Amino acid sequence: MEKRVHNFNAGPAALPLPVLEEIRENFLNFQGSGMSITEISHRSPLFEEVINDALGRARRLLQLNDDYHVLFIQGGASLQFCMIPMNLALPGRPVNYINTGVWSIKAIKEAQIQGKDVRIIATSEDKGFSYLPTDYTVDRQASYLHFTSNNTIVGTQWQQFPDEEGVPLISDMSSDFMSRPIDVKPFGLIYAGAQKNLGPAGVAMVIIREDMLERVPDNLPTMLKYTTARDSKSLFNTPPTFAIYVIDLVLTWLEETIGGLEEMERINEEKASLIYEAVDNGEIYQGIAELKSRSMMNVTFRLPDEELEQRFLSEATSNGLHGLKAHRSIGGCRASLYNAVTIDSVRSLVEFMNEFEEKL
Amino acid sequence: MEKRVHNFNAGPAALPLPVLEEIRENFLNFQGSGMSITEISHRSPLFEEVINDALGRARRLLQLNDDYHVLFIQGGASLQFCMIPMNLALPGRPVNYINTGVWSIKAIKEAQIQGKDVRIIATSEDKGFSYLPTDYTVDRQASYLHFTSNNTIVGTQWQQFPDEEGVPLISDMSSDFMSRPIDVKPFGLIYAGAQKNLGPAGVAMVIIREDMLERVPDNLPTMLKYTTARDSKSLFNTPPTFAIYVIDLVLTWLEETIGGLEEMERINEEKASLIYEAVDNGEIYQGIAELKSRSMMNVTFRLPDEELEQRFLSEATSNGLHGLKAHRSIGGCRASLYNAVTIDSVRSLVEFMNEFEEKL
Repeated sequence: MEKRVHNFNAGPAALPLPVLEEIRENFLNFQGSGMSITEISHRSPLFEEVINDALGRARRLLQLNDDYHVLFIQGGASLQFCMIPMNLALPGRPVNYINTGVWSIKAIKEAQIQGKDVRIIATSEDKGFSYLPTDYTVDRQASYLHFTSNNTIVGTQWQQFPDEEGVPLISDMSSDFMSRPIDVKPFGLIYAGAQKNLGPAGVAMVIIREDMLERVPDNLPTMLKYTTARDSKSLFNTPPTFAIYVIDLVLTWLEETIGGLEEMERINEEKASLIYEAVDNGEIYQGIAELKSRSMMNVTFRLPDEELEQRFLSEATSNGLHGLKAHRSIGGCRASLYNAVTIDSVRSLVEFMNEFEEKL
Repeated sequence: MEKRVHNFNAGPAALPLPVLEEIRENFLNFQGSGMSITEISHRSPLFEEVINDALGRARRLLQLNDDYHVLFIQGGASLQFCMIPMNLALPGRPVNYINTGVWSIKAIKEAQIQGKDVRIIATSEDKGFSYLPTDYTVDRQASYLHFTSNNTIVGTQWQQFPDEEGVPLISDMSSDFMSRPIDVKPFGLIYAGAQKNLGPAGVAMVIIREDMLERVPDNLPTMLKYTTARDSKSLFNTPPTFAIYVIDLVLTWLEETIGGLEEMERINEEKASLIYEAVDNGEIYQGIAELKSRSMMNVTFRLPDEELEQRFLSEATSNGLHGLKAHRSIGGCRASLYNAVTIDSVRSLVEFMNEFEEKL
């Protein structure tokens, strides 16, 4: 039995233990091929089975109809920040963004670099992004409305998606993708870097609606067109085969062991509630995000002073509780509770939080 | 002991067995962290050590001085086909390409899409790319001269690089990178998808000379600027951490077990010579590439007819010799002999080739 810690990393983050064990078990001999999964051709029947299985599972979990394509694209969410305006901004029409923090800002910046007519229709910058804006008007002519569904740094999450008024929604769901069921209908595009809920770093999953693909300009570089990934079934060039293999295992776990996104959401709600309860009941803990905007994925909180926070973090580490330091831009503590973080890990953290306070 | 085959795949391809064993051994608990390498932060000291070790080893193996930067960029060689003209074509000056096959053509196409003044100064298309052109004149005003150092499909390889006449050389070395020592001085940029000689698919290593970075236009999308990777030490966004970890292990093996690029070249020459000997001495085998242009990495050959080729391939597979089918565009057989393919695998193939012929 390997020594393992409770992993609350913000990403790359915990993966399900059975998935890691399966990778290890088959690492030198994938499916009896006598080769590692890292050594087989992306055009072999063996790998085709892997990628098709992953795509099928993603479609079932999200209940996608034939209007939607599921693509694997390298470069993470950051390359999507560039590809979205490049492919989907319609000539002469604005693009709308809601600014809820660092990741929104990065997405906005890339649209601006390309000279698009960027309109930031709402922002929560006035209160350090500790809440989600509710007051905004979508341009009826907008090419799309972009928002970040979960904000890892301050720890906010849209529980009800923005009202799009017929404009296609685009969302960076990197940090809460596959953590709960969603209604994809209003979405033109959803994207997620894998390294939080899906698998290892090095690939993004992109869900795109057929009608959006008609917007893709002909003269873009081949690798930067969504149509290239659609037409080649994500095999235009060698894809990150290992990452896709792990995603397939994670989706298998999600579908067969957990039982789907509704059950996953129930577990994620239970996990987050346990920590928020500890934060709210504790005398020394103070939640950072506003109540109504709290994230199920990233619970952020502060202690009365930085010295105590340091002690909290260092004693947590000694107790096998890893990755609880918040992003340096806001300070304090953050417990990231992605799908693979177990209730057992959460209970250990809650116990530690209570004991830490009692000892003071 | 796992059943393993002799792996002659063209890419993704064989990895050194000790590397695979080390990955498996530590997969659930990297460096005593209690986490998998796939679960740790790219900004953690643990991962910093991995990436810095990989960069240091690459620099030592290639004997790079401070004029050169080593970068990790997602998207494989195919994204480099786009990034090179975007970043490095100087306004009002042509770009030169030598066309030696499918990969050159893809690189050329991306420069054309961007409207650059593309001049193909030499091509071996007239004989199905079975040789490397020797007769060409480089534009003295060219922004760069691009060539493919090893052509996997027909199996040709530049033994002496094109004469650049002061114009910076740019080379796609995906399929022979780190297989032999090179003099980097005439090169402005060298790039290589990892999945042949370096590691798993999902990352390219880019070697770029400082003066080339001055050409990068300000207004490019952030992820597509070489300066972004340089300024952030390849950590602008989450890199493919697992792929970089494996590259570090492969480079460690190359440096410490093999003993460096000169020794690697000696072994690779021995491997290729053994197969070429079997091809040339056999009555039924016919090499595809012209003698002077033969590749040490991809040995291509035909048998008298397709039926016999089918039999050869299917009996090879039964004998544990995997991945010998050539690219469908040319037919026949191909043995890819990247660094991790052992002399033992090569001897098994030679033995099989001789026996197959004798049995006829």
